[in-house]
Amino acid sequence: MNSAPQTHLSVPQSSTQIVPIALDEGQRGYDILIGSGLLDAESSWQGLPKAAAALIVSNETVAPLYQERLWAQLQAHYARVDAVQLPDGEQYKDWASLNRVFDHLLASASDRKTVLFALGGGVIGDMTGFAASIYMRGVPFVQVPTTLLAQVDSSVGGKTAINHPLGKNMLGAFYQPARVIADLDTLDSLPQRELSAGLAEVIKYGPIADASFLDWIEVNLEALLARDKAALAYAVKRCCEIKAWVVGQDEREQGLRAILNFGHTFGHAIETGLGYGEWLHGEAVGCGMVMASALSVRLGLMPEEFLPRMRRLIERAGLPVTGPKLGVERYLELMRVDKKSEGGAIRFVLIEGLGRAGMHAAPDDWVGQVLDAHCA
Amino acid sequence: MNSAPQTHLSVPQSSTQIVPIALDEGQRGYDILIGSGLLDAESSWQGLPKAAAALIVSNETVAPLYQERLWAQLQAHYARVDAVQLPDGEQYKDWASLNRVFDHLLASASDRKTVLFALGGGVIGDMTGFAASIYMRGVPFVQVPTTLLAQVDSSVGGKTAINHPLGKNMLGAFYQPARVIADLDTLDSLPQRELSAGLAEVIKYGPIADASFLDWIEVNLEALLARDKAALAYAVKRCCEIKAWVVGQDEREQGLRAILNFGHTFGHAIETGLGYGEWLHGEAVGCGMVMASALSVRLGLMPEEFLPRMRRLIERAGLPVTGPKLGVERYLELMRVDKKSEGGAIRFVLIEGLGRAGMHAAPDDWVGQVLDAHCA
Repeated sequence: MNSAPQTHLSVPQSSTQIVPIALDEGQRGYDILIGSGLLDAESSWQGLPKAAAALIVSNETVAPLYQERLWAQLQAHYARVDAVQLPDGEQYKDWASLNRVFDHLLASASDRKTVLFALGGGVIGDMTGFAASIYMRGVPFVQVPTTLLAQVDSSVGGKTAINHPLGKNMLGAFYQPARVIADLDTLDSLPQRELSAGLAEVIKYGPIADASFLDWIEVNLEALLARDKAALAYAVKRCCEIKAWVVGQDEREQGLRAILNFGHTFGHAIETGLGYGEWLHGEAVGCGMVMASALSVRLGLMPEEFLPRMRRLIERAGLPVTGPKLGVERYLELMRVDKKSEGGAIRFVLIEGLGRAGMHAAPDDWVGQVLDAHCA
Repeated sequence: MNSAPQTHLSVPQSSTQIVPIALDEGQRGYDILIGSGLLDAESSWQGLPKAAAALIVSNETVAPLYQERLWAQLQAHYARVDAVQLPDGEQYKDWASLNRVFDHLLASASDRKTVLFALGGGVIGDMTGFAASIYMRGVPFVQVPTTLLAQVDSSVGGKTAINHPLGKNMLGAFYQPARVIADLDTLDSLPQRELSAGLAEVIKYGPIADASFLDWIEVNLEALLARDKAALAYAVKRCCEIKAWVVGQDEREQGLRAILNFGHTFGHAIETGLGYGEWLHGEAVGCGMVMASALSVRLGLMPEEFLPRMRRLIERAGLPVTGPKLGVERYLELMRVDKKSEGGAIRFVLIEGLGRAGMHAAPDDWVGQVLDAHCA
């Protein structure tokens, strides 16, 4: 694997940044706008697909905070602007919630040019994107992520999905937004627990792709936790760049792209095992990264000091580093239905060197030892 | 619009025919196999995507007839072959039925290489294709159409969908099969009513794209109704060729492709208005083509004799030529949620000359006159 462009330790000044995302032939690329004040800036909303109607999809937590301002901007571009609010939480990322979007679209006879706007976190982004991909076999959509996790992780890659009672993100589509508008000011309203959850995905990009970004996070973690705009702008931009670089080489997750799932195999098992909504996705990923770091060491891929380094950083970010005691058998059973599994064999994303990751199988009893050591 | 390759009136000998389907860049093309004895021919099943498991999706009517034979063939290629049966009928083309496929896939921990086989008519093909497109964001699938309608119409174009209570085929995806195996022998078990329904889609290709194919159908309709294999082979092949030619120029239905929906705007209104499953899809399309032909004449696009010619052929094929009395207002309301509508304006596919079609708006009162004249 070639290395991603390098990170520098200094923090540049905050201003609107644009990360252009190129896609495979036959698909139009799009821009990620990152900065302060974007929600109220007219320029953010110009040049989007033309249509008679727009639908804002949000949830009952985010809508009261930002929907009116988004509505005011969209009314300049669409003759009809509607909104639908879904219940808030991973446990509602299901078909029943998705169907509320379709009920609304069809009851208002919305045509196949209608543009959907996802206003919220990763759950809203995933559901709105999936709804857009299948409504009339595809309408345009725009991401307006209001959580750190959604800004760093859902903005690139076109993965959309809902959960099934038997597995997380099992039903979905690869579908690209027309634009992503990541207004950093919306992070001011984020509960600290959600900020920490977002930092899990930020931290992830260091060990898998950029050792110097890992250094940068360690130096700047306090600024990120204090919501310093310049630090956030840099972190969001750098994560989007790295993810775009990875995805650009493997849009359909045939190989390299799977490294973005570092910590996610253990993490998804925690989420599914506890029931969606108990732990935040980022919390499960944070704890999952501790386990995957431990397994990387157990397989001799990384030196012993890598594990305490990762655990310390994840803990400093306000994330859990000890998993729930579901039992080793239950963990293994849950991980076998992971999308990366093949023919029943679990495949883990493990760190092979700082800034480099790959897929590995591991003996069940070694995985069990890791789980025993990191669950309580 | 350029004209499609021309049809000759003679019927060639029956043997296995292959229609190769080329797709846009970045997608692999696939073959449509058309002939007798294909289900039991080993060669039909060679060279498909490799996987640990295959799942046959069928319904309670078709499975007892052909599932065992398909199973026997697939066992040579997949370590595990499972089957799931859905209830039979358009009224079950919904999320609840689709979810039975996902329940089965997830309960058996089927991975993202699992190949789905659609064994049945258009409903099974549409649902299996849609399930394949969203399960783990996409697994391969193979069409094994057992109705004339599915063989001529679902084999090309990659349209998959389920119905929503407020509209037909409203949720779906463009997703291509790895192969289509159209065994003409399976048409022997088809009820006559279903054969007629399939003929509606066959007839459609004449007026929209190939005047000489319309002549051919008029000459060979008795042979088709008697299930003459050579006539069926030619009709299926010719329809697939024409559809591939249309779709190849417009895979995402931005323009030309919409002509394949001749008769479908009226037809979908009949289906939705009566409740899915009352009329067969092909019956509604047959009657819808009479109405669309009448509207083509009403708008001065076609000479008066075109309407009785179409009506006579559709009637000879065993299809209804008079629509249900839903009331003009109800028809208009139903047609306004059609996927081709834009900003609330209904757009009809009308015939502009024998073998040539295009999209047209029409005054509500003219549409009302057509409905009054063709409903009872």
